[in-house]
Amino acid sequence: MGEFDLIERYFKRPTTRAALGVGDDCALLQLAAGSQLAISSDMLVEGRHFFADVDPRTLGHKALAVNLSDLAACGAEPQAFTLALALPEIDEVWLTGFSQGLFALADPYGCELVGGDTTRGPLNICITVLGSVPAPAGRSQALLRSGAHPGDDIYVSGHIGDARLALEALRGKISLPPALLQAAKRRLEEPSPRIKLGLALRGLASAAIDLSDGLVGDLQHLLKASRVGASLNTAAALGRLAARWHVDWASASVDRATALSCVLSGGDDYELLFTAPASARDALAAAAAGSDTPITRIGQIDAAPGLRLLNEAGSELADSFRSFDHFA
Amino acid sequence: MGEFDLIERYFKRPTTRAALGVGDDCALLQLAAGSQLAISSDMLVEGRHFFADVDPRTLGHKALAVNLSDLAACGAEPQAFTLALALPEIDEVWLTGFSQGLFALADPYGCELVGGDTTRGPLNICITVLGSVPAPAGRSQALLRSGAHPGDDIYVSGHIGDARLALEALRGKISLPPALLQAAKRRLEEPSPRIKLGLALRGLASAAIDLSDGLVGDLQHLLKASRVGASLNTAAALGRLAARWHVDWASASVDRATALSCVLSGGDDYELLFTAPASARDALAAAAAGSDTPITRIGQIDAAPGLRLLNEAGSELADSFRSFDHFA
Repeated sequence: MGEFDLIERYFKRPTTRAALGVGDDCALLQLAAGSQLAISSDMLVEGRHFFADVDPRTLGHKALAVNLSDLAACGAEPQAFTLALALPEIDEVWLTGFSQGLFALADPYGCELVGGDTTRGPLNICITVLGSVPAPAGRSQALLRSGAHPGDDIYVSGHIGDARLALEALRGKISLPPALLQAAKRRLEEPSPRIKLGLALRGLASAAIDLSDGLVGDLQHLLKASRVGASLNTAAALGRLAARWHVDWASASVDRATALSCVLSGGDDYELLFTAPASARDALAAAAAGSDTPITRIGQIDAAPGLRLLNEAGSELADSFRSFDHFA
Repeated sequence: MGEFDLIERYFKRPTTRAALGVGDDCALLQLAAGSQLAISSDMLVEGRHFFADVDPRTLGHKALAVNLSDLAACGAEPQAFTLALALPEIDEVWLTGFSQGLFALADPYGCELVGGDTTRGPLNICITVLGSVPAPAGRSQALLRSGAHPGDDIYVSGHIGDARLALEALRGKISLPPALLQAAKRRLEEPSPRIKLGLALRGLASAAIDLSDGLVGDLQHLLKASRVGASLNTAAALGRLAARWHVDWASASVDRATALSCVLSGGDDYELLFTAPASARDALAAAAAGSDTPITRIGQIDAAPGLRLLNEAGSELADSFRSFDHFA
């Protein structure tokens, strides 16, 4: 039983009070006339989400970044967060770095730490973020996973796949030149939540989700919520691997199949995947420029169910490529 | 460095957006005209907050109860919660019991599970609760720790000390007759958050805190926040040990010093400790009756700083009793 089945079976129930419950990037509570509260929680466990020897400053950044990314995918403006922290021991150097990394990311957004808990235990970081979304006359402007329509373009922000490339190198499965490893590691350890872009997408995007599990997996969540299918241009997606421009694939021991796997199913990207009608292309280009975030068109929503992975020529990938996660 | 120093040093900062930040039972966010959002997070770790073999249903109850207790101490009405769960393995029997215990407590309050996270890792449960507090014309009706005045009465709700009595018996440090152990264990494992009383105390209590660390420790937090001192009638407090009425102290191997220690510093009570002016006594009796929650007057707020522990005769306890936690 996977995480999603577990939630579905034991914890997902119809909500009457909340405007939106379990199953999107954020939950939504209608607490005030004209405004909704967006809420998201993420828990990071040592050994699973980060290495024990990770720089505490980058860990503080990442712990908040993965939560802010959920607000971004919802088009919410960050307001506050709580921090619950289980620590095996009190290490002042670690705490100094961790708290600095946390606040360096929180402060520019005016996202305030308002409470939480600390306890002894195996290292575990649980952050809950709260953001606000306008809902004039009860019409929420939140971006949901469920709004994609056939014919909509599919976009991805920034760069994807680099975090997984770094992870595989750190695991010793591939070899990367030092400068490239450094750049990819930064994407793994210090993702940039796309808050500005998320705010700019209100009223433009028809659906959105943040990329945490991987492009193909997260796109399938969006397709399922919207009850549509899609065609994905894998060559366009591969073009968003930032490392692609710097790798001499041969010397780096990274072949195209590995690179494609990182892009399609790498995870830990914390970019936005979103859909919008073709009529919004100019407005989206302006939104991307205004938020200093590149966006790339990588596919199209189809009425026919299912996800089709296409090559440059527009043909479906061969079966061997369809099992897109060759690390699994 | 203890938990409070750690928070003070690394994580407590002035807030500008939030109406109330770190340091009370809940944080308060002014998100809407006329209403505030109360927020609290608690993290429970196996081996520290519960035994590995605890019934998952009671664990589900307790994980939410300790959070609802923070809302109660704030006079907030429960609205929603998030659940982040790290599990060493997926155990369906455990998940069934845990989710049943959780929802059995949440449902009567209409407190909806709206989101969260699940991951593999050492068993860790992190819940964040959200509640609402009226704030007509910007005047919050939230109960804070900081409002106690000299001359105010000090009250405690329900029963205290029994949870610690059970814990010491389970640790094999004391022996209790089976029926008594069962009753005390229920207090340890299934505390009752005093939501109804908290709501009834709005406009009556001058300050409030929930009892999680122990009567003396939590009272000192309230005194510090209110910049006052207090005299505590330890005999009246001892009278709130529910077990007192059922224990043959001699056969139970529990002496008066042990019982007093459980009451004064036992912790895990999840009752409300609150203060109110003497003029509110009749109204408080009605509030207690209306919320089916007994309350007991156990002391008085003083202008002189410090906490005085008094015996039945009104004299300060001897030094040996002042070191109130003889388990520490």
